[in-house]
Amino acid sequence: MFENEERERSAVSVVGLGQMGARLAQAFLAAGHRTTVWNRTPAKAEALAARGAARADTLAGAIAASPLVVVCLPDYGVVTDLLAGADLRGRVLVNLTSGTPQEARRMAGGIGAGYLDGAAMSGTRLVGRPEALFVFSGDPDVFATHRPVLRSLGQAVHLGADPGLAAVYDTALFGLAWGALAGFHHAVALTGAEGVAPEEFAAVATGHMPFVTSLMTEHARQVAKGEYPDDDGTVEVHAAAMEHLVHTSAALGVRTDVPELVKALLDRAAAAGHGADGIASVVEAIGNATARV
Amino acid sequence: MFENEERERSAVSVVGLGQMGARLAQAFLAAGHRTTVWNRTPAKAEALAARGAARADTLAGAIAASPLVVVCLPDYGVVTDLLAGADLRGRVLVNLTSGTPQEARRMAGGIGAGYLDGAAMSGTRLVGRPEALFVFSGDPDVFATHRPVLRSLGQAVHLGADPGLAAVYDTALFGLAWGALAGFHHAVALTGAEGVAPEEFAAVATGHMPFVTSLMTEHARQVAKGEYPDDDGTVEVHAAAMEHLVHTSAALGVRTDVPELVKALLDRAAAAGHGADGIASVVEAIGNATARV
Ligand SMILES: NC(=O)c1ccc[n+]([C@@H]2O[C@H](COP(=O)([O-])OP(=O)(O)OC[C@H]3O[C@@H](n4cnc5c(N)ncnc54)[C@H](OP(=O)(O)O)[C@@H]3O)[C@@H](O)[C@H]2O)c1
Ligand SMILES: NC(=O)c1ccc[n+]([C@@H]2O[C@H](COP(=O)([O-])OP(=O)(O)OC[C@H]3O[C@@H](n4cnc5c(N)ncnc54)[C@H](OP(=O)(O)O)[C@@H]3O)[C@@H](O)[C@H]2O)c1
Repeated sequence: MFENEERERSAVSVVGLGQMGARLAQAFLAAGHRTTVWNRTPAKAEALAARGAARADTLAGAIAASPLVVVCLPDYGVVTDLLAGADLRGRVLVNLTSGTPQEARRMAGGIGAGYLDGAAMSGTRLVGRPEALFVFSGDPDVFATHRPVLRSLGQAVHLGADPGLAAVYDTALFGLAWGALAGFHHAVALTGAEGVAPEEFAAVATGHMPFVTSLMTEHARQVAKGEYPDDDGTVEVHAAAMEHLVHTSAALGVRTDVPELVKALLDRAAAAGHGADGIASVVEAIGNATARV
Repeated sequence: MFENEERERSAVSVVGLGQMGARLAQAFLAAGHRTTVWNRTPAKAEALAARGAARADTLAGAIAASPLVVVCLPDYGVVTDLLAGADLRGRVLVNLTSGTPQEARRMAGGIGAGYLDGAAMSGTRLVGRPEALFVFSGDPDVFATHRPVLRSLGQAVHLGADPGLAAVYDTALFGLAWGALAGFHHAVALTGAEGVAPEEFAAVATGHMPFVTSLMTEHARQVAKGEYPDDDGTVEVHAAAMEHLVHTSAALGVRTDVPELVKALLDRAAAAGHGADGIASVVEAIGNATARV
């Protein structure tokens, strides 16, 4: 009895079985949750049914089947159209569709059900593994209730009560990842031009990333205080080293736009009076983060 | 007897006790190596002597004191001038001065002693801790012999026999670190404009970095093969998402040059025919890494 109730409480429905939705359903199944699935094109539910998912014949059936309904569709317009008229009373909707903070806030206000907005940060490949990061925002109590199910997807992090936060972090973390990848791609090209094999360089580079990551923690602390000690070198010293990287790249026939961008950020920080400060002062040359803290 | 011989074999001299050199000497001392120090301005040796370092009165004395001589001076010109006429026979010189691959190769050829070139990748703060990365290049046997001493500095990685490699990696890893930091700085500005505190964002961002780092390993494998599967999304899909980040940034009053640069890289990859390929194909739009592998 108790086991059945438990299983009932942790049941989940997945609406939208595209590349991402299918992975979400697989992860819920793998974690042992009773999982009901629905997709506009029914054939996409077959492989999941073979793994033990219940197939709902209609969207309404999928919504009725579980207290938690996860939707993953191309955009918020599709979600709104599809759910128009659906009876969501007593349900919690978790929306893993990509969108803007405004769209998320609007949907949270109008859905007539418990609502969490979410974003999948680590692509489809790792869904269900601890490396996969899923961020959620909205009512913290709703998150706490459904966390045991949501963490089947990977790391499930609650960002705050504002439903727009998942979209904010989604965009910001995408930019962060690409900064690192652009730096890496440039470095692979540069070392490649010196005859170093990509995998050889990557082995050393990935060993260096925990240090780079530790700088982020340190920089965030400095930005919060608006104080930029020069323990890791000044803006001017880094600008000179970056100039060297521009020249080295050019001499090897490698495009210089990545180091040139960084040089421009450092020069802007210097022009704003941070030449002798630490490098975290570059944040002030990009936005006004400190002004709001 | 044996203990003394052992201590003798692992003795090390440090020449140049600036910000970095002083930290190197401290790390050798902390690891229990007999450490002799010399600096042009003798006063800088005092604190180290108090910690147990032997002070050499002359450069020649420092060189004579240990089989391994570590130099850390402003640039190769200073190293060359200072060592002109020094008797380095039977010694191994480890040069942790920053310079170009060409300077390192020239010095290796002309020094008349065993030679390893090296670079300190993690600033001064972490020297002696496992997070600190030191890269070395030159004769692998010489490295193997002195590794037990050099690893007192942190992770000591040998890159290959070409003495220029440490300088190559130094420049490349600096660019990598800055790509990641530029992405992070932009993300801090962006989330800050939405009212998120820097340290709050950093806590989530640093949890995402192991995933980003795992992409680097995957991308290196793809670049080595020249094959770019679209498992993590195509160049075109990422370009569209990056365009979204440009607009979001602008709408929040945050400078757009970081996402614009990434957009430009993606557009260049698309223009070269990689629009439907995976994002690691961006490397080909930066340099000619694959051409040499
Ligand atoms: N794929 C990724 O790596 C990834 C990563 C992070 C975030 N996301 C986000 O996840 C969301 C879904 O992406 P995806 O890659 O899974 O997309 P996808 O593979 O294109 O799948 C889209 C899904 O939406 C359904 N759909 C489309 N229009 C519909 C409509 N009018 N009514 C009902 N269902 C409709 C499709 O059903 P049919 O099968 O009937 O066409 C399909 O199940 C997007 O917001 C995306 O940005 C994806
Ligand atoms: N500091 C860092 O975070 C860091 C990180 C990575 C790499 N590095 C590299 O490490 C090297 C040293 O940097 P640093 O920060 O330690 O520099 P520093 O603090 O300026 O120290 C320079 C050292 O060189 C000596 N020196 C300068 N000119 C000399 C000369 N003509 N003859 C003899 N000695 C001379 C100085 O002696 P006096 O005391 O007599 O002036 C001092 O010991 C540089 O190549 C730098 O790029 C530094």
